[in-house]
Amino acid sequence: MTTHDPDSLSHAEQAALGSGADFWSTKQVGTIPSLTLTDGPHGVRRQVGADDHLGIAASEPATCFPPAVGLGQSWDAELVGKVGQALGAESRALDVDILLGPGVNIKRDPRCGRNFEYYSEDPHLTGVLATSWVSGLQGTGVGASLKHFAANNTEHDRMRSSSEVAPRPLREIYLRAFQRVVQQAQPWTVMCSYNRLNGTYTSQNHWLLTQVLRDEWGFDGVVVSDWGAVQDRVAAVAAGLDLEMPSTGGTTDTQVVEAAEAGTLDSAVLTRAAARMVALAAKAEAGRATQTPAFDPETHHALAREVAAHCVVLLKNDVVDTAPVLPLTAGRSLAVIGNFGQTPRYQGGGSSHVNPTRVDVPLDEIRALADGAEVTSAAGFTTDGTGTDAALRDEAIRAAGAADTAVVFLGLAAHQESEGFDRDHIELPAEQIELLEAVVRVQPRTVVVLSHGGVLCLAPVVACAPAILDGALLGQAGGGALADVLYGRVNPSARLTETVPVRIHDTPAYLDFPGEHSHVQYGEGLFVGYRWYDARDIPVTFPFGHGLSYTSFSYDGLELRSAADGITASVTVTNTGERAGREVAQFYVAKPGSSVARPPQELKGHAVVTLAPGDSERVTVLLDRQDLAYWDIRADRWVVEGGTYEVRAAASSRDIRATGTVEVTGDDLVLPLTLDSPLGEAMTAPVPPRSSAR
Amino acid sequence: MTTHDPDSLSHAEQAALGSGADFWSTKQVGTIPSLTLTDGPHGVRRQVGADDHLGIAASEPATCFPPAVGLGQSWDAELVGKVGQALGAESRALDVDILLGPGVNIKRDPRCGRNFEYYSEDPHLTGVLATSWVSGLQGTGVGASLKHFAANNTEHDRMRSSSEVAPRPLREIYLRAFQRVVQQAQPWTVMCSYNRLNGTYTSQNHWLLTQVLRDEWGFDGVVVSDWGAVQDRVAAVAAGLDLEMPSTGGTTDTQVVEAAEAGTLDSAVLTRAAARMVALAAKAEAGRATQTPAFDPETHHALAREVAAHCVVLLKNDVVDTAPVLPLTAGRSLAVIGNFGQTPRYQGGGSSHVNPTRVDVPLDEIRALADGAEVTSAAGFTTDGTGTDAALRDEAIRAAGAADTAVVFLGLAAHQESEGFDRDHIELPAEQIELLEAVVRVQPRTVVVLSHGGVLCLAPVVACAPAILDGALLGQAGGGALADVLYGRVNPSARLTETVPVRIHDTPAYLDFPGEHSHVQYGEGLFVGYRWYDARDIPVTFPFGHGLSYTSFSYDGLELRSAADGITASVTVTNTGERAGREVAQFYVAKPGSSVARPPQELKGHAVVTLAPGDSERVTVLLDRQDLAYWDIRADRWVVEGGTYEVRAAASSRDIRATGTVEVTGDDLVLPLTLDSPLGEAMTAPVPPRSSAR
Repeated sequence: MTTHDPDSLSHAEQAALGSGADFWSTKQVGTIPSLTLTDGPHGVRRQVGADDHLGIAASEPATCFPPAVGLGQSWDAELVGKVGQALGAESRALDVDILLGPGVNIKRDPRCGRNFEYYSEDPHLTGVLATSWVSGLQGTGVGASLKHFAANNTEHDRMRSSSEVAPRPLREIYLRAFQRVVQQAQPWTVMCSYNRLNGTYTSQNHWLLTQVLRDEWGFDGVVVSDWGAVQDRVAAVAAGLDLEMPSTGGTTDTQVVEAAEAGTLDSAVLTRAAARMVALAAKAEAGRATQTPAFDPETHHALAREVAAHCVVLLKNDVVDTAPVLPLTAGRSLAVIGNFGQTPRYQGGGSSHVNPTRVDVPLDEIRALADGAEVTSAAGFTTDGTGTDAALRDEAIRAAGAADTAVVFLGLAAHQESEGFDRDHIELPAEQIELLEAVVRVQPRTVVVLSHGGVLCLAPVVACAPAILDGALLGQAGGGALADVLYGRVNPSARLTETVPVRIHDTPAYLDFPGEHSHVQYGEGLFVGYRWYDARDIPVTFPFGHGLSYTSFSYDGLELRSAADGITASVTVTNTGERAGREVAQFYVAKPGSSVARPPQELKGHAVVTLAPGDSERVTVLLDRQDLAYWDIRADRWVVEGGTYEVRAAASSRDIRATGTVEVTGDDLVLPLTLDSPLGEAMTAPVPPRSSAR
Repeated sequence: MTTHDPDSLSHAEQAALGSGADFWSTKQVGTIPSLTLTDGPHGVRRQVGADDHLGIAASEPATCFPPAVGLGQSWDAELVGKVGQALGAESRALDVDILLGPGVNIKRDPRCGRNFEYYSEDPHLTGVLATSWVSGLQGTGVGASLKHFAANNTEHDRMRSSSEVAPRPLREIYLRAFQRVVQQAQPWTVMCSYNRLNGTYTSQNHWLLTQVLRDEWGFDGVVVSDWGAVQDRVAAVAAGLDLEMPSTGGTTDTQVVEAAEAGTLDSAVLTRAAARMVALAAKAEAGRATQTPAFDPETHHALAREVAAHCVVLLKNDVVDTAPVLPLTAGRSLAVIGNFGQTPRYQGGGSSHVNPTRVDVPLDEIRALADGAEVTSAAGFTTDGTGTDAALRDEAIRAAGAADTAVVFLGLAAHQESEGFDRDHIELPAEQIELLEAVVRVQPRTVVVLSHGGVLCLAPVVACAPAILDGALLGQAGGGALADVLYGRVNPSARLTETVPVRIHDTPAYLDFPGEHSHVQYGEGLFVGYRWYDARDIPVTFPFGHGLSYTSFSYDGLELRSAADGITASVTVTNTGERAGREVAQFYVAKPGSSVARPPQELKGHAVVTLAPGDSERVTVLLDRQDLAYWDIRADRWVVEGGTYEVRAAASSRDIRATGTVEVTGDDLVLPLTLDSPLGEAMTAPVPPRSSAR
């Protein structure tokens, strides 16, 4: 265990601790060991062999779990925790000390190229799931790196673009998940982002890295830069950055030493940064010494399949003839159509790209469950952007018409979305829609399966397909998971973590995404995702939280109780259908007549319950008092407004099943009145507390 | 003529010149005369007798011309100039040196209580009309006060609220009309607003009052505060304020003197402010000595009627049986229904409220043109907010059913909208809609006449009424003007200056108006008014620029020519109907594939043409090069982008009649490249001009 006293280190040693030895590791300084950091978050991207100075060489095989876009759809903190644990085991097996994840940036606009690495448009859901991931990972003695801190919501011009965000949306939307994870899971590291925030690079942003992260939230770990995010190391150290990655060949170490000796950088600040690196090394050494379960690729693949099956959202399942299209009946013939059925799209492009231990092919997995029935296949289209291939299309239509049911795999190819660039639209390629329409004309029992990292416009799909499964990105075992769901071996239970809008024009950031001239205005303010569609009463194709099941559930007996730590909400969920199933009960909170601008409702809790047919369970969720607070820009702090709150137990943000109200005692808030204060404010301002001195 | 040398004045004299003697006048200092300033802008509000220290005493009778909300609907710069002239004559007759107007704030949100004092949601139209108003007024030797500078777009909390506006919308939307008026009409004074702009009170905003207004735009007149807008006189003088109004009893003069003597206020700045006051006094003295036409109330009332008739927008005019409902046929019986037919609503509440020389009552004016036919009347509803009065309603329905045609006057009462507060919705009172629906059930030939200062939700009116006239606020002669239009003595030709949205949820600033906690985020950025509805492809009830006629017009032969000073657009307008009429030909400009965010189209010119049936006129308009520019935040200046522009000749923003394209040479723009610049930027950046030295 490292017990070095950072005060005894020279400036040069302190500075050396604060930057990388190469692309993936820190420097050994005296007895303080070098640490290995590696890309995540949905698998361990441990680079093979020597450092290539670029970090893009092939990596060791590792299990590719569902990326956050898929994983989030489980809405299942327990499952996400298991994934974190498994990733920890693989990290340990690959000698990785810190796995670079989770990504908790909010999906502000569906076009952001990196959305597949993030969980949701909602900060509560994001924070809850990421907290569980960090706890699962760190329980194995491997550190997390909570990223990208903060307001990094576009790939365009990301190395310099300034996110211009007003205080309330910054706190209530963009920082909220970070705050939850820091305070509830104590990640070993937080990774600052590339972009600027309100004009200042996050790597040099003292307000962000020190005032908010450490002083307000109590973070005591290491702040590491995103790879190459440091513009000015000395300014960054002064702001609260501890570790610059990757190596700069010692150049910036020298700058730090010179600044410390010249007194332009406070030596105490440098010592404190070094102390944090020493403490991090101590955690890593302790982690290395921990017993962890061995990593068995087959066991992890099975886990990846179990998890992925919980990530598949049943968007639509109409009755055709006399029965819903899904689940499929084993023994009936099937045509599997679409490129992605044979060459699955299961993860995103960029730094998170994992070299999988194996990959399930959907077609093969479907055949394995088809009980001997004929399963034909046809590519239907190419993904090379050359438009409709008539021969492929006609072959697919023939196959669809000849089978009892068609399963059509549609989606975006890897080159159509990735880290590093943003999309400029949200449409599926026209040739895919054309193919689907032709298939449905000959085959009314058609199921669409979607693979994609970013939200798609689904209006043309919904207009013709009677059944739709949304897999987003499911990781290496997605093929098996889809087969499980198609055949009803797993009853689908996942839920959308993002609204599916009718058209791009309706989206909140439509007119100022991705920004221009190195500035992005966050003009929609608080009204991100469902908060926008609800507030403006805009129709959507599928609402946030939506997801169907092969069974059905009822909600009864909503009870609300106000307590010091928040609102306790209880409701009885009953499986009213014929199959066992899992329900994600959602709790949205509204504050009618609020004195501040508010979304009409916000998710503040959810619970997952698995029920046999006819069974009931009483679900109780604490809607944490802190989560009820808004950020008051006058007092510059969180404030819980007193009064009547409405709580809605719901199967989705637009499928409210029960509503109740509860009284909440507000926080004291004393504001200065001035001669310019409107009279109404003077009349409603709380009475200042009396001084205890008389 | 004042010829004082401001350098020879003492600090005390200089400071004394810079604040009011009382509510409406400046101090006489030596031979420099006291000046009288008085509220406008649609009439002279010259207070009777002695100063009441509040400025709310009764005022001398003066002609109440249409307030800007109505006047703007004429889209007629020549007519607006005539109103300016007439106001100048009345000001001179009432010994007023400076009339406080025009108001050129942009109508950002329909709920703003002061929108009736402003022209439009479009800065081009606002700027063109206000320039003409200032020129007309100042031609009589009376000064204008261009207000409220700047970004004062809400009444809520207006004494301290900070308008948070990004540079492009600030320049391209909120400052653009001010810039045009300053540069083209040289108003004697500019009035700073109450609010803060990006955190700093406009009265103390050096960037706004000095860098932009004087250094960039070349303003050489006086900056006067809105009444009571100065928080800190010394800071205001340093920022560029010359005159604080009203009197502070000498308190702030003392502060200025002390600061100048202590050196905390630069004496040169104080001297320069005093010099501007001396120059203003000289202009006023010269104005007083000018011959102006005598002010005859009857002549001005006739002008007010002529103007008002050009301000009435025919929103809808369906055929009922075999003919359009309008114009009315003299000699056929009529029921005039609705409170506002007998008690007209013709101006707004607050500082602009004029004591009219007389008021036309619509009912009387209609009877005067009815050619002896029976004209009954019924109030139909009250405006006291007590809901439906069944007796009034039933009487109105009986009257409507008994007549050949019903004219129903609907609108907002004075207490429902005013300076000083914002509305929280845009609905007509429910009892008015209910009455209208009942009337239409018994009388298919029903005309609705609207009186209101702010935009109304008209969906329920459009759903039932076959004909609608929108008078907005028409001034004291509005009753006669409406009679003229109803009976076809004047063919309506006015156009909407604001979009009529389907519902408040669709409006651009819906979610952050009027702001909270003393901040208003201008989240919609550039996309104000039709720019928003067009960009997001949102249906509207009536588009910007809409207005029908009793005749019809065609547009042919659009020709575009690019020149150094802009784009010249020519089109032939033909009256294709049976009546003489006036057409407002509008020219919208688009820049397809622009390198910056742009509204899909923007009004950049218009022309008014009056044509006998069958006649044609070739209309030519210069779309000024400066008006094609966007504000480049990298270069911090206006830039005309080179390339292909599309010009649309149109009868409204959504009634495009002819489209053409034209090439425009762009401005040189050399930007620094950095290592973080995206590669594409390096490849498309213009080549820096070579130095002339080799």
